[in-house]
Amino acid sequence: MKGTIVTTIIRYPHPEITEDLSELRRQNPLTQCITNVVVTGFTANVLLAVGASPAMVIGVEEAAEFARIANALLINVGTVSGVESRAMLDAAQSAHEHATPWTLDPVAVGALRFRTKLVEELLNFEPTVIKGNASEILALSGREGGAKGTESIFGSEEAAPYAKELAVKTGSVVVVTGATDYISDGDTVIGIPGGDAIMTKVTGTGCSLGALIASLTAVAPNPLRASTAACALYAAAGERAALESKGPGSFAVNFLDQLTSITTSLS
Amino acid sequence: MKGTIVTTIIRYPHPEITEDLSELRRQNPLTQCITNVVVTGFTANVLLAVGASPAMVIGVEEAAEFARIANALLINVGTVSGVESRAMLDAAQSAHEHATPWTLDPVAVGALRFRTKLVEELLNFEPTVIKGNASEILALSGREGGAKGTESIFGSEEAAPYAKELAVKTGSVVVVTGATDYISDGDTVIGIPGGDAIMTKVTGTGCSLGALIASLTAVAPNPLRASTAACALYAAAGERAALESKGPGSFAVNFLDQLTSITTSLS
Amino acid sequence: MKGTIVTTIIRYPHPEITEDLSELRRQNPLTQCITNVVVTGFTANVLLAVGASPAMVIGVEEAAEFARIANALLINVGTVSGVESRAMLDAAQSAHEHATPWTLDPVAVGALRFRTKLVEELLNFEPTVIKGNASEILALSGREGGAKGTESIFGSEEAAPYAKELAVKTGSVVVVTGATDYISDGDTVIGIPGGDAIMTKVTGTGCSLGALIASLTAVAPNPLRASTAACALYAAAGERAALESKGPGSFAVNFLDQLTSITTSLS
Repeated sequence: MKGTIVTTIIRYPHPEITEDLSELRRQNPLTQCITNVVVTGFTANVLLAVGASPAMVIGVEEAAEFARIANALLINVGTVSGVESRAMLDAAQSAHEHATPWTLDPVAVGALRFRTKLVEELLNFEPTVIKGNASEILALSGREGGAKGTESIFGSEEAAPYAKELAVKTGSVVVVTGATDYISDGDTVIGIPGGDAIMTKVTGTGCSLGALIASLTAVAPNPLRASTAACALYAAAGERAALESKGPGSFAVNFLDQLTSITTSLS
Repeated sequence: MKGTIVTTIIRYPHPEITEDLSELRRQNPLTQCITNVVVTGFTANVLLAVGASPAMVIGVEEAAEFARIANALLINVGTVSGVESRAMLDAAQSAHEHATPWTLDPVAVGALRFRTKLVEELLNFEPTVIKGNASEILALSGREGGAKGTESIFGSEEAAPYAKELAVKTGSVVVVTGATDYISDGDTVIGIPGGDAIMTKVTGTGCSLGALIASLTAVAPNPLRASTAACALYAAAGERAALESKGPGSFAVNFLDQLTSITTSLS
Repeated sequence: MKGTIVTTIIRYPHPEITEDLSELRRQNPLTQCITNVVVTGFTANVLLAVGASPAMVIGVEEAAEFARIANALLINVGTVSGVESRAMLDAAQSAHEHATPWTLDPVAVGALRFRTKLVEELLNFEPTVIKGNASEILALSGREGGAKGTESIFGSEEAAPYAKELAVKTGSVVVVTGATDYISDGDTVIGIPGGDAIMTKVTGTGCSLGALIASLTAVAPNPLRASTAACALYAAAGERAALESKGPGSFAVNFLDQLTSITTSLS
């Protein structure tokens, strides 16, 4: 693995984050999500909780048409199969052609051949942001990712240098999630500590972060700030929700409440 | 837009609503739901909470067969794609042929071509109830619906006259949801105030209302009463749940609890 | 129906159950779930709550490849349609060939022709465990199951003798769920009382039990013990969660919390 890199640590509250989250609630961006079937409901609830407008338009007959009119697009390959992969490619191409910012969550890339090939094709349409765990970012960097299903066996700090390198290579902002999230535009590397370990025990926390990043790319000045605001909000809401929760069931409930509570008390 | 129309305001509690909700719990109607992937779990939980029996039989190989034996059917086109649209058409045709009452929720009709054409075809099978937001009802009436994704930019009061007109034209009971819900059989127009704005921040509240209406069409004397009981129960449960909730996460939990609490304390 | 059979009653806490649940948390088995769209999120949350690692790899392009590397597999036919049935058959065949233990939940078998035929084909790949309600187990035994959608109209005690017989015939461990769950390997019959009636009013409680059984087959000494540990944990967590819940919404939250609370306090 590579050595350490210079990182700027950012935490909520922070003036730029406050500004971007306020804009999110004000502009209510229409965010198309083509995501996995496990997390659709939770993802929609996260977007509604922060003031964005989710639209799960996933059919191959409609995906590209909608990617043209949406304010942002998320593609998450978590449970992808044949015809859905076609919808993803069409939507990504449409987003690329019509300058709709789009975020790619390459779940378990490197672990299975079909989705690895699909992710390679999706990268041709130049995602605005790529968000993954350490395994996924390492796999995209051509290293052995060491995935166990959808979970990473490496820490995010090990993948941070590769995130920066991948950002240079692709032109995308790259987010690697973990105990500390790292975000790079190929130049700066930002570290977002915080959150709580219980977040790894509730399905959809990682996947919905991708949707939140996508929403913010529609309103923030640049995708580095969009990603930073999303990760910092998640870290803060996760910490607060964990304090008042008895387990993963109550955490999921409190987390949604905290997302609304934090973002409605801004400014 | 059209002028105002004469409306009868109904609120829970009300003798006919109590009667219909009691029948729902007593008869436990088997309600087939072909709905969108975002809200399947929440919809099933809503039906179970009020004493109905949900059955998400969605495969094209089974949809029509099941629509014959089910007590009611819901079709919601929220995340429809190719083969699923075939299952919807087959199920609607089967329901029509076998006198199974069925409810249509034409999510985002008018905003995307594929589903707009699909909804037109579905209307040939004469839904018992059509339920939509103002944008959707306006689009079905041939007006510019002004949708933003799945959300309406018009209020329900603006769509109420068109709901009545659409009911006359189709023979369906038409429900337009909003701050006040309006229900028309082409003759009467009923208004159901209540609920809480937080309901628009929890995914599935609107879609599960369609499933609840469908369930009630299996037991109520007529679809106007079925729709009225469903909307009035939602308004009451939404108000009560909002009072005890800190945000959208706890609201969803409390809403399900209230649906059970209200419907088990009847009579 | 048949007469009564000799049954050993087991309740949590119990040394073998404690041992198996501790192993589950220690080994964190990667559990592939090809399940119905209604319960994917809840099922993933249940597995995470007890320390297993869910992976919803469902595409026909990936299902068999993943069934080779997964520690266990669940197949639940609840909302199956065409291409998904192909993925199920491929995954079951792969699990069979590579000695991955797998659990079959034949939802509504006997009630609809397509899935009934599919389940027959799946049985050729010799599931480690078959889990169903009384109607489903009776249908698999060639009797009239008396299903109403996904619900059984017979009690589990009526199906217990047939469960034993089916275990002898198939070589699978057979679990029949109900007020008391019965588990048989064709020799012993174990009865697990407990739980709470509210569990039938929350979608996914039954389906996620199948996933929990699957996870435990990866770590327990034999599938009889795996099934016993799963049912006993569910009964205990259900009882405790019911005590602190106001309705089905809060029950689902408290149930997840209890699953974590019980399994982290072991040993």
